[in-house]
Amino acid sequence: MAEGPDFSHGAAFCDGCFVPIAEAKISVLDWGFTRSDVTYDVVHVKNGAFFRLADHLDRFERSLKAFRLVSPFDRGQMAMLAAQCVVLSGLRDAYVAMVCTRGRPRVAGSRRPADCDNTFIAYAIPWIDVIPLDVQARGAHLWVAGTPRIPAASIDPTAKNYHWGDLTKGLFEAHDAGADTAVLLDADGYVTEGPGFNIFIVRDGEVLTSDRGALEGVTRRSALDVCAAAGIRARIAPLRVEDLLNADEIFCATTAGGVMPASRVNDRILTNDRPGPISTRVRELYWALHQDPQHLTPLSFENFEQPFKDISA
Amino acid sequence: MAEGPDFSHGAAFCDGCFVPIAEAKISVLDWGFTRSDVTYDVVHVKNGAFFRLADHLDRFERSLKAFRLVSPFDRGQMAMLAAQCVVLSGLRDAYVAMVCTRGRPRVAGSRRPADCDNTFIAYAIPWIDVIPLDVQARGAHLWVAGTPRIPAASIDPTAKNYHWGDLTKGLFEAHDAGADTAVLLDADGYVTEGPGFNIFIVRDGEVLTSDRGALEGVTRRSALDVCAAAGIRARIAPLRVEDLLNADEIFCATTAGGVMPASRVNDRILTNDRPGPISTRVRELYWALHQDPQHLTPLSFENFEQPFKDISA
Repeated sequence: MAEGPDFSHGAAFCDGCFVPIAEAKISVLDWGFTRSDVTYDVVHVKNGAFFRLADHLDRFERSLKAFRLVSPFDRGQMAMLAAQCVVLSGLRDAYVAMVCTRGRPRVAGSRRPADCDNTFIAYAIPWIDVIPLDVQARGAHLWVAGTPRIPAASIDPTAKNYHWGDLTKGLFEAHDAGADTAVLLDADGYVTEGPGFNIFIVRDGEVLTSDRGALEGVTRRSALDVCAAAGIRARIAPLRVEDLLNADEIFCATTAGGVMPASRVNDRILTNDRPGPISTRVRELYWALHQDPQHLTPLSFENFEQPFKDISA
Repeated sequence: MAEGPDFSHGAAFCDGCFVPIAEAKISVLDWGFTRSDVTYDVVHVKNGAFFRLADHLDRFERSLKAFRLVSPFDRGQMAMLAAQCVVLSGLRDAYVAMVCTRGRPRVAGSRRPADCDNTFIAYAIPWIDVIPLDVQARGAHLWVAGTPRIPAASIDPTAKNYHWGDLTKGLFEAHDAGADTAVLLDADGYVTEGPGFNIFIVRDGEVLTSDRGALEGVTRRSALDVCAAAGIRARIAPLRVEDLLNADEIFCATTAGGVMPASRVNDRILTNDRPGPISTRVRELYWALHQDPQHLTPLSFENFEQPFKDISA
């Protein structure tokens, strides 16, 4: 019996074709690799529906512009291709990436970014928790890394990018110290972000998240939204390392994991070494927001040609 | 008639196999791509011999260590695989890269770099001039970019890496201004490097190259070596942007192009808008150094199994 490709571990749109994730590859000469000249976005699918897809597409378009990349597909086509990857994979809970690389020069030998044909890749793989679920349950142990975050003047952190060398170095510092993950400061001692997540603190009942050196996370926005709706005071503000170390509670926020409480930072133990009450409340509200139809784009898993249930989407 | 693969456009060792360069690809999930968690080195082959291969291997090993990457192959094996790529390609003048990526976690779902199996890739492609030959002949037009180089505290520039976002931004600034390429300063206004090359100035007959924020280039070292041998004063020193703008001459140095004179920087025209005399002399001496057997590792193009002519190499 002839069988089709196995997309169950993930499906990708790459080089103009739909392929199993194991076959989704880029050339070692693509400047997306050799110059990390690439942008991306990650949107998740929960219970068969995209969450805040329009917000992720908005940010992806802003990131493309920031790096002067032009996707060969327009917004609607990119959304369609990402949705088709999800449908092919059959994954009801998925991590869905859209990626645009600089590609390679049309003109042989050119070293000019403007001479390149940019490429678009999309893929859907099983859901990822940036902080594993068992660690989320006891609260993550954070480590303030000595490696400073790359400054915004050199690489714009609000345009999603793969310049992770500082975050990786910070992760090694954290793991060497026995912690789960890292928080990076800027050169002036202000809190920026961790490897793949925004940082929030709770102080005197108020929720605060860093105002600089960090991605403007969609999950961060959701966390601020649910706080506003629930009457929890919340705002974006400058946070110094002392604010972090003296916080009542800390939590992290990212698409790939959601709202993830911490229970330690360096040698400080927070809220009896457990996720704090406000962090836990925000986490619950965040997942409850996944019931709100205004944020959901449901998928038709039976219909590869028209993967969106609401064709006006 | 059965024909073998066509390696004439370049040959790669990738995923444990030798393949034509067009088939050399990495997974879109490799952290070498998604976190730019990768190091590399580039050595060139001129007239059928590697130039300063040992120096490039030394630096590659230092870069691996700096990023806590472990190649699955030892130094001798990596040299052998790179040499075999050259022999397969048949290229007598080649750009040869050795690359080590973080790879992917052995442990499903892990976000820890230490859980990854690192990968080694080598490839040989036709010689590249980072600054095209016709531009080298008239002298490159340089542009001092407003984008600051990523600080060494965040990403170590002496460990070769693909964190090029700042250099790419600088390149766009240069091209927008009608220049050929860019020079980046650090946040304090000191000269660092350009996209893929070290910067030298000539002042009062003395050759100076930047002491910070830059790769310790093998071509930079060759340039300093030939100056010493020829009685031209030369040293590594702090260079401010004013030193660059008021230089008598400027040249760039990189493996992929060698010593490449400039004739303009911003609105300044140097040495009658042509390559300067000392830059031109250093360039000639650099290419003459390619006759020195102590720097050469000749290849046997007939012998894939033993690609080195001197088997003690």
